Amino acid sequence: MLHHVICLRFEDGTSDEQVQQLMDGLMGLRGEIDTIRSMRMGKDLGIRPDNFEFASLIEFDDEAGYLEFRDHPAHQQVVRDYIRPIIAERAGVVFLGP
Amino acid sequence: MLHHVICLRFEDGTSDEQVQQLMDGLMGLRGEIDTIRSMRMGKDLGIRPDNFEFASLIEFDDEAGYLEFRDHPAHQQVVRDYIRPIIAERAGVVFLGP
Repeated sequence: MLHHVICLRFEDGTSDEQVQQLMDGLMGLRGEIDTIRSMRMGKDLGIRPDNFEFASLIEFDDEAGYLEFRDHPAHQQVVRDYIRPIIAERAGVVFLGP
Repeated sequence: MLHHVICLRFEDGTSDEQVQQLMDGLMGLRGEIDTIRSMRMGKDLGIRPDNFEFASLIEFDDEAGYLEFRDHPAHQQVVRDYIRPIIAERAGVVFLGP
């Protein structure tokens, strides 16, 4: 399994509606990109003050499945319309594991 | 389910052995802290040059299970001995979801 992990901090002034659009946009990709095996995401609970604000965890069978997602026009549209406009910091990791 | 996500960058000069000690130390906690439901981790594949270097994904039933892990002496020892000495940057998120 390939695990695609993203943690984000948002720009000051980002609204709950904008974060919801990001989440709805990503979740909608499950119906469009058939290499996605699972998708989880959520907003940080605020237990640790220096945490980032949001994470998504997306699983694929392998690197080819991840690359199909990365380069898919529907994903690139979500990145362009809903993610890039509100990102202040991004931490991404792609790793193989059970 | 509570998802505890960490992405790390390591200090320059961090050795493969140090990263392996970190991974072995974390994985060993599964036998010591019984609120851990699953644990996955791995090194970034290097597909995207600005990614972080390592991620861990740990699942608990709820916030109480996460807090027991966070405050457990065995976990604090792994943080002190194997994680903190080699961290350059940390992005953490704790979120609730399926």
